[in-house]
Amino acid sequence: MPETTRRREIEDVASSLFRERGYAGTSVRDIARALDIQGASLYAHMTSKEDVLWAIVERMADRFDAAAEAALTDDAPVVGPGSRLAALVAAHVTVVTEDLQRAGVFIGEWRSLDDGHRATIAGRRDAYERRFRAIIEEGVATGSFAAVDPAVAAAVILTALNGIVEWYRPDGRVGPADLAEACADLAVRAVLAVDGPSPSD
Amino acid sequence: MPETTRRREIEDVASSLFRERGYAGTSVRDIARALDIQGASLYAHMTSKEDVLWAIVERMADRFDAAAEAALTDDAPVVGPGSRLAALVAAHVTVVTEDLQRAGVFIGEWRSLDDGHRATIAGRRDAYERRFRAIIEEGVATGSFAAVDPAVAAAVILTALNGIVEWYRPDGRVGPADLAEACADLAVRAVLAVDGPSPSD
Repeated sequence: MPETTRRREIEDVASSLFRERGYAGTSVRDIARALDIQGASLYAHMTSKEDVLWAIVERMADRFDAAAEAALTDDAPVVGPGSRLAALVAAHVTVVTEDLQRAGVFIGEWRSLDDGHRATIAGRRDAYERRFRAIIEEGVATGSFAAVDPAVAAAVILTALNGIVEWYRPDGRVGPADLAEACADLAVRAVLAVDGPSPSD
Repeated sequence: MPETTRRREIEDVASSLFRERGYAGTSVRDIARALDIQGASLYAHMTSKEDVLWAIVERMADRFDAAAEAALTDDAPVVGPGSRLAALVAAHVTVVTEDLQRAGVFIGEWRSLDDGHRATIAGRRDAYERRFRAIIEEGVATGSFAAVDPAVAAAVILTALNGIVEWYRPDGRVGPADLAEACADLAVRAVLAVDGPSPSD
């Protein structure tokens, strides 16, 4: 379906309702009411509630993939696993903070998709997570990183970054660029090889 | 309301439905159907769907608080901020893995509570998060920890730990004790003072 102004408005309103009440708790009638139009005229722009969720989720999946690609093929000297992990983390946080509402729908409601769409996104999420895991595996293998479990570390880091939609306030004290940098630092330190803390640390 | 076997069954079934379909997507009729009893007889054991959610959420809040208290007043030599943070993190992960279903409802659905209950839990969650933040502030002040933003670090760590309900499989490769230890290691390393990674790390 071509992107129109009305369609974008629908997705904006739907994102905000899905975040507020959940996908299951939002009806097409709620979306129509929030736009102050008739349900029937809404159907000129969408075929179903799931169609809107799918459009939001698929576009966010595209953004996360594109940002990860760009982070790893950037002109900057991105060489070791620590720097590559930092770049991936910062890219993820940037996508999240650029559109907290839609990122929140992607993260919180992708499981509400119909079976076929859900399977597609599950596969894309797995592939995306494997980028993180591969870098951590490499860092562990070369000894740059501590002997962490790469699958656990990747899952912990990614859910931490996804959790940003739950607590981050864009009008707060910490700007998006600072947040991206802070998260990259925390994530890289979390896996970097160091001596463990002594009981007095 | 006193805890009875039937009441516990209701909360078990409700937890599993709330996780699967969301609180908004679950009706009292769904709960009755899953228990194979009449809706009317369900009301002998509960006053409303929110009453069940509140019971689940409040008990989980109690468990998280008790575990944090125990972690910080344990007999073990828990002295420096690194060790205290590790103890808090491990305690949190243990509560989560002991009852993934109810922990998932607490984490994912506390915002679905009625206004008064939601405000109560918001306050308790803030107080709980302050335990993490206070330890991180202390570690930063004493120089044991890197110069992280304590509020950001606490939020990132806690949402990472809460995210466990999204990906952890109790029948998988990593047992609950190993997961708790792995998370404690990641969290402490994330904030511990070290030299930053060089581009080749």
